[in-house]
Amino acid sequence: MEITDVRKYITENEERFLNELISLLKIPSVSADSAYDKDTQRCAEHVKQSLLDVGVDMAEICQTDGHPIVYAEKMIDPAKPTILVYGHYDVQPADPVELWSSAPFDPEIRDGKIFARGSADDKGQFYMHVKAFEMMNKMDALPCNVKFMIEGEEEVGSSNLGHFVKANKEKLKADVIVISDTSIIDNDTPSITVGLRGLSYVEVEVTGPSKDLHSGVYGGAVDNPVNVLCEMIASLKDENGSITVDGFYDKVEIVSAEDRAMMAEAPFDLNDYMKALDVDAVRPEAGYSAREGTSIRPSLDVNGIWGGYIGEGAKTVLPSKAYAKISMRLVPHQEPDEITALFDAHFRKIAPKSVKINVTAHHGGEPVVIPTDNPGYQAASLAMEKTFGKRPIPERGGGSIPIVALFEKELGLKSILMGFGLDSDDIHSPDEHYGIFNYLKGIETIPFFHKYFAELSAK
Amino acid sequence: MEITDVRKYITENEERFLNELISLLKIPSVSADSAYDKDTQRCAEHVKQSLLDVGVDMAEICQTDGHPIVYAEKMIDPAKPTILVYGHYDVQPADPVELWSSAPFDPEIRDGKIFARGSADDKGQFYMHVKAFEMMNKMDALPCNVKFMIEGEEEVGSSNLGHFVKANKEKLKADVIVISDTSIIDNDTPSITVGLRGLSYVEVEVTGPSKDLHSGVYGGAVDNPVNVLCEMIASLKDENGSITVDGFYDKVEIVSAEDRAMMAEAPFDLNDYMKALDVDAVRPEAGYSAREGTSIRPSLDVNGIWGGYIGEGAKTVLPSKAYAKISMRLVPHQEPDEITALFDAHFRKIAPKSVKINVTAHHGGEPVVIPTDNPGYQAASLAMEKTFGKRPIPERGGGSIPIVALFEKELGLKSILMGFGLDSDDIHSPDEHYGIFNYLKGIETIPFFHKYFAELSAK
Repeated sequence: MEITDVRKYITENEERFLNELISLLKIPSVSADSAYDKDTQRCAEHVKQSLLDVGVDMAEICQTDGHPIVYAEKMIDPAKPTILVYGHYDVQPADPVELWSSAPFDPEIRDGKIFARGSADDKGQFYMHVKAFEMMNKMDALPCNVKFMIEGEEEVGSSNLGHFVKANKEKLKADVIVISDTSIIDNDTPSITVGLRGLSYVEVEVTGPSKDLHSGVYGGAVDNPVNVLCEMIASLKDENGSITVDGFYDKVEIVSAEDRAMMAEAPFDLNDYMKALDVDAVRPEAGYSAREGTSIRPSLDVNGIWGGYIGEGAKTVLPSKAYAKISMRLVPHQEPDEITALFDAHFRKIAPKSVKINVTAHHGGEPVVIPTDNPGYQAASLAMEKTFGKRPIPERGGGSIPIVALFEKELGLKSILMGFGLDSDDIHSPDEHYGIFNYLKGIETIPFFHKYFAELSAK
Repeated sequence: MEITDVRKYITENEERFLNELISLLKIPSVSADSAYDKDTQRCAEHVKQSLLDVGVDMAEICQTDGHPIVYAEKMIDPAKPTILVYGHYDVQPADPVELWSSAPFDPEIRDGKIFARGSADDKGQFYMHVKAFEMMNKMDALPCNVKFMIEGEEEVGSSNLGHFVKANKEKLKADVIVISDTSIIDNDTPSITVGLRGLSYVEVEVTGPSKDLHSGVYGGAVDNPVNVLCEMIASLKDENGSITVDGFYDKVEIVSAEDRAMMAEAPFDLNDYMKALDVDAVRPEAGYSAREGTSIRPSLDVNGIWGGYIGEGAKTVLPSKAYAKISMRLVPHQEPDEITALFDAHFRKIAPKSVKINVTAHHGGEPVVIPTDNPGYQAASLAMEKTFGKRPIPERGGGSIPIVALFEKELGLKSILMGFGLDSDDIHSPDEHYGIFNYLKGIETIPFFHKYFAELSAK
């Protein structure tokens, strides 16, 4: 398979590739919100049909206790290596919808980008593998067996995937897993993610008086749970931006000065970064750069807060309850369950006697580091070098793909994080988009990943 | 007029008095929410008709730039003293509606109490004056001229009342103002409010990045406006519970040890207080009792906070904006406009460089102290002593009735705060209620206020 043939096929089919992705993006498969359950199911069926259309041997919808998993495979020869493609067809909620320039589930192409919820995360990215497979299959140039596992619960913690993987180890047997759900540095600077932060996500409830009170009558004596929650959240970081949860840093990996120096060589302009976000300052942990703060160091963010009167005008209420969703990004070798337990204990400990505390754990995920000295990484690196004309930079990412640790544990397989998005794609935000360049570049690169992986595995 | 006649009239008309109040409470006159504007207008018309029905000389709806004011009068003799009754027919929003045991605008009587939004604040209380007037008029026993001014914007800061009062000084000419919008200590312990805290109410907006971000990709470098807002709010009070806004205490009245000792004699059981609110501790400013914290000392409360994802499940967003509604209760001689300006300056000063701040002022109100050595207070005290059988205790209240300062300034009149509610009436909260005992006791007491005021004014 020559790159000229690949590029010709893409050029000839570009419009159809885009239209097919747009059809997929029109389905509001929001896994977090049960109001969309029918759409999420419909999306799974759509994905299954897309796979059957491109010539897999079999495709099926595997029911779980939550949203279903789509599985498909094409076995060309049991003696050849097998690539397992993982992706997810579910998407983040679209709120706040009013901040979108076009409707989140009515995709629009502007400035060479497809704007829609899920365009980059992850429909546009996993669908590249479907289209690359179509091309290889049409050209009769499949060098490896291929399996697809496209789930519908990644955005809500993949809570049923573990059970599925454990119960289907034989079916999922493969030599490598490839996942496109990450970013490159920029369209001229390819990179491959070799580290991911883990996640501990909790929801806290602070209860003061048993009912809402008049702030004039009670204010100044009765502790206000919103004020208390603010005090408690504020105390979770010290003046250096370090997290104060007892024991939080005990297992944090210390990255060597050499490694930090190497990472610092990746192109990064702090002024451009701040300008793109419209902020006048960043505030990483003292002693670390912004880039390090989002990769080799853990973080703590309030993802949502609410309490009291939030309508129009003024209401002089001293509310009964206040709530927050708080997540912590973890680095090797922090354990999400342990961190959640440490947070829970710490949060209860720091609460004043005037309030009652409830902490609920949402999903978590373990941090991962991916070695570069294996056929999977090497194949991805060669494939990107082939299509971008530049060797990709190995990079640590800030986000979490909790299933990478799961795959390693249950299937004994490394995951290769060969994503084609950009950090500026506004995933999880209004106006999420995916560059047409990136979409087509992924379709162009993936066949070479298969080719090099077959060659390197044969050695 | 003998108390036996008054009591007989009330007994004979009790059921009708209740049904009429229930009709009034069914009108959702929520002034803060423009969705209810038609109901608020309808409520004004209902109040006007109620006044015409009880025999005033004239009643009219006075349009303002906001909700209208209902004015009515009965002049029996220009030589006799004139009592101006102030009240408000507008009510607080009913949110959170799901916490009400019965619908907020479908009044229900349970355990001798009327449950409905506005039952105590202030429909049930101003309507006592309408029914007391009916009784005095029917018995041909009106000792004073009576004027009614019932407004529709008290819960949103009475922003158009000032203009109305200034433009109608002649019409509103009176010898005293009586307002029933406060509480007694308990049904066996009458009290009259002789002090009210003022109010400064602001809404703050903290903007971090120009759009919502993925907390994995950006968390640890980009300052999160929710975390920042929490830090800023937490810093507004020190470890003693004192407010840290620069200059905040400069004009605070220092109450003498004697006055504090006298106030401490009013019946108050901290354990009962905490038990009723279901809290294990209170947290007044260091050096002050709970009772003092809500009366002679200023306070600061977050009345509402919101930002980020507040729906079902988990969303790993680093939000662009966070908001809070913050109010400060003021004591003599703090000035609301000055305090709002001090807050604004302080809040901007403490903001880190990573965020942008916006502060909007809502309505404010001046703190007041009412002297007890005047015919108005004395008449109220004698009237309560007559009907309760006990001399009422002069008490400082924690809430705000900003118009008291306005009336003093524009009309040169003292307001007598002769309310019949209880602090436990859940005004501004779900399940607001007003005791039938309190409603009828008010109707019983008011005619004696008129009687004694006429007698004392004649001296």
